[in-house]
Amino acid sequence: MKVITIGREYGSGGRTIGKLVAEKLGIPYYDRELVDKAAKQSGLAVEAIEENDQVVTRSFLYDLAIGTSYGYVNSAGVPLDLNTQVFLAQREAILEFSQSPCVIVGRCADYILRDRDDVLKVFIYADRKARLERIVKEYGEDPGKAEKLLAQSDKRRARHYEEFTDSIWGARRNYDVMLNSATIGQEQTVAMICDLAK
Amino acid sequence: MKVITIGREYGSGGRTIGKLVAEKLGIPYYDRELVDKAAKQSGLAVEAIEENDQVVTRSFLYDLAIGTSYGYVNSAGVPLDLNTQVFLAQREAILEFSQSPCVIVGRCADYILRDRDDVLKVFIYADRKARLERIVKEYGEDPGKAEKLLAQSDKRRARHYEEFTDSIWGARRNYDVMLNSATIGQEQTVAMICDLAK
Repeated sequence: MKVITIGREYGSGGRTIGKLVAEKLGIPYYDRELVDKAAKQSGLAVEAIEENDQVVTRSFLYDLAIGTSYGYVNSAGVPLDLNTQVFLAQREAILEFSQSPCVIVGRCADYILRDRDDVLKVFIYADRKARLERIVKEYGEDPGKAEKLLAQSDKRRARHYEEFTDSIWGARRNYDVMLNSATIGQEQTVAMICDLAK
Repeated sequence: MKVITIGREYGSGGRTIGKLVAEKLGIPYYDRELVDKAAKQSGLAVEAIEENDQVVTRSFLYDLAIGTSYGYVNSAGVPLDLNTQVFLAQREAILEFSQSPCVIVGRCADYILRDRDDVLKVFIYADRKARLERIVKEYGEDPGKAEKLLAQSDKRRARHYEEFTDSIWGARRNYDVMLNSATIGQEQTVAMICDLAK
């Protein structure tokens, strides 16, 4: 059984798919929990790492401005910028969790574990129309804001990925399989990932 | 059972995978044959449409220069440029073949059939190292030339796709599933495509 990392477009249902895969395989699922743990280990408050996705809040930037250090320093002993500290804390948690089979959604996990042969790297995407529908129906967002939200979320995920990796978010090179959850369907997408993980 | 289109990076083994899928499902496989048929229907000589990929040869450009027409004209009765004629001939064949389940490799088939729900659109890719190995070992190319060949072939495929579609070659938006044949392995890649086609 492999560790499974899932990258996903906003509104593609990647998170739900990850949960179902973990359930079906009987292995842990990490998403918010991962951030909690990372935060705890590094002294970062949970609220500071926004769920959607890895954005540093104003209050945190304020903390940084007044000189709070979160433990990560460079070779000269100077605290790293907060974004990097958050990333490194998440990275530590991912490295720990991935010691045994589990599902990890987001957080550049595919990149962090890129050199491991026993990791299945998945990317979930979907047609624009299906994503907009999901954002409104399942996430309960305002239909008038869905378009903007979609564009912003993807841009944010791409920017975060590209800030901490030397690669491009969603580029096929980084994944073993990329699945269109809208055309393949949630059930079959889950089944395929489970098959590949075994 | 669906029609299956397979786009693929050069050296990813997509052609072999397509053949094996067709065999396993007991449906026709179209690749070179498709070009033959397209050529025959439109009066284009088979040799003119190079196998790797859709490149118009010098001799053909010469034929065009001296005024040979291959039947495709615009609304004013003026013969279309030869590249477009080749594309349209292939398109006709693809539309005919796809009346019943089959596997079609390359030739922008995913784009041509993009509006059909009963078409499974697959893209096969692989790690650079695996592709270089395949080019040398299976295609028998000179190891010293493999790097250049790989870059040229992908560029050519991308250019062709982008010339005749309003999309980008290999962009996830155009496919239902994208598979890394090097990490997933040929056998499991074939099995997954067969599962999805049913």
